[in-house]
Amino acid sequence: MPIKCLAAYAAREELRSFQYEAAELSPLDVELDITHCGICHSDLHLINNDWGFSTFPLVPGHEIVGTVSARGAGVRDLGLGQRVGVGWQAGACMECNQSQRGDHNFCSRSIPTCVGRYGGYANKIRVDSRFAFPIPAGFDSAEVAPLLCGGVTVFTPLRDFGVTPLARVGVIGVGGLGHLALQFARAFGCEVTAFSSTPEKEAEARKFGAHHFLSSRDPDALKKAASTLDFLLSTVAANLDWQAYVSLLRPKGRLCFVGVPPAPLTVGIFPLIAGQRSVCGSNTGGRNAIREMLEFASRHGIKAQVELMPMGEANAALAKVAQNRARYRMVLAN
Amino acid sequence: MPIKCLAAYAAREELRSFQYEAAELSPLDVELDITHCGICHSDLHLINNDWGFSTFPLVPGHEIVGTVSARGAGVRDLGLGQRVGVGWQAGACMECNQSQRGDHNFCSRSIPTCVGRYGGYANKIRVDSRFAFPIPAGFDSAEVAPLLCGGVTVFTPLRDFGVTPLARVGVIGVGGLGHLALQFARAFGCEVTAFSSTPEKEAEARKFGAHHFLSSRDPDALKKAASTLDFLLSTVAANLDWQAYVSLLRPKGRLCFVGVPPAPLTVGIFPLIAGQRSVCGSNTGGRNAIREMLEFASRHGIKAQVELMPMGEANAALAKVAQNRARYRMVLAN
Repeated sequence: MPIKCLAAYAAREELRSFQYEAAELSPLDVELDITHCGICHSDLHLINNDWGFSTFPLVPGHEIVGTVSARGAGVRDLGLGQRVGVGWQAGACMECNQSQRGDHNFCSRSIPTCVGRYGGYANKIRVDSRFAFPIPAGFDSAEVAPLLCGGVTVFTPLRDFGVTPLARVGVIGVGGLGHLALQFARAFGCEVTAFSSTPEKEAEARKFGAHHFLSSRDPDALKKAASTLDFLLSTVAANLDWQAYVSLLRPKGRLCFVGVPPAPLTVGIFPLIAGQRSVCGSNTGGRNAIREMLEFASRHGIKAQVELMPMGEANAALAKVAQNRARYRMVLAN
Repeated sequence: MPIKCLAAYAAREELRSFQYEAAELSPLDVELDITHCGICHSDLHLINNDWGFSTFPLVPGHEIVGTVSARGAGVRDLGLGQRVGVGWQAGACMECNQSQRGDHNFCSRSIPTCVGRYGGYANKIRVDSRFAFPIPAGFDSAEVAPLLCGGVTVFTPLRDFGVTPLARVGVIGVGGLGHLALQFARAFGCEVTAFSSTPEKEAEARKFGAHHFLSSRDPDALKKAASTLDFLLSTVAANLDWQAYVSLLRPKGRLCFVGVPPAPLTVGIFPLIAGQRSVCGSNTGGRNAIREMLEFASRHGIKAQVELMPMGEANAALAKVAQNRARYRMVLAN
């Protein structure tokens, strides 16, 4: 039975029906019946070939939840019918230094779920079982799907850059990533400040966990917040005045990008030196990070706020994401 | 008895004789008979008022070694005649969060040794005894003087940014700071690469601890070294192609500035995100860092390679530093 999916046949085209014969089920692979797939902003970038490495027909989708419908002969840890999730990666070499230290996301032979192979806007998918993560009971499948990429993307920097409950954390942008980052930072025990260019989002930002809300269009408010934050996570894809954000950092503070602004970063070196400050980036997470994220989110009731649409309406759902109208994460359901 | 010293009476002027009456010896202060004072590049910046906060007459000098000649009534841990060193800081408030966590260098009421007070190009100085550090036996006073500022400046980032013996460390610049950084990185147990625009320095760089030497003027050599380093310390004051240096970092790698290039930093954000890479700065160190640095340097035989000149020839010595002719650190002796 071929796998049925939705594909962009060329860059920037609408998705249309597509089907392909599944690859042979290798000993460590599982096949999933997909129930839900979140729409990540990077799906749009892939469809538009913004990063230059898309291959067409392109089947997007890397925030997948489904149930195991077939197992390779060597799969021991997942059972038929078990609910699992798949994120940005469908595999890694498992042998390089990066894989060995748990940073599968930096494996140079890492296999992205929907680049060079077909992703999760589909009825089924086959992946390496080691990249299919059991979903803790209690999660709604739609609400957990965006955690597989968006969630781990904002969780990993908190985890890997030493953010402790004593930290004062800022989150720039209250959107698909930002609304998750606010929840994780609050659950980390931190004092949390949300930054948004949309003052109307204040109430929701507070609901997601922000203790404070600052309008990123108010230079005076930013000035008053100088030297107050230990960790500042930028989830936006816009070019902001990054020097102004660096000045929000206390000594030893860190500005971390998970959203990708189009322009390069320009900041003075002296403010970095004078306060031992850092600017950095972060990108999804390895297998342990995903497992820990799911366990942590389950324990703290962290979930995506989603709008659910049928898989067949993927083009309309993508349009909402492109127009920044999703509140806060679109999820497609079979 | 007034304290005799050398001062710039106005910005960019040569140093001339100057004397001042010492402030009262507070209960926790010590007075030192200065035997040696290193010349740090920042002394030149202060004389030239490059940073805009110099006060004149300006007595430079913040790499001081001397012996305790008088003690305040509350000084218990230093004895008369004991050999001690003083670095960039002569005091801190000791009460703020930064002081409490040992980051005295980030105390907003920190007292720089030679800004707003008179520094170490002198026969004596009075400082808070908590910022006068016992010099381990075995050190030559001239060779240890530059460790008080230059040494701790390159040691602190290795200490604070989690550099382990398994790291591959690069040092950009083989000069006053760089020749110390190579020694510390080697003693940390790391694999060490020196980067210099002066190929003639290769032999000395290797003597200071470099396993490898790359010409920073050879783009092909830099390309071959892509994604090989965990920690890259820039000690230079020049504007280099920082994007090229970021590309030398492995995933999770870090480029750290201790030298201050005049232009702002411009780097792409995507390479930071794709490999969880960081760009940061670092600046001297707190009291613990200085103590640990001295102990570590003593254990590993780390010392500055110095040219010694009499205090009275400070102007000639400063000229050598300004012309980049010091090999590798100038020290003035009384």
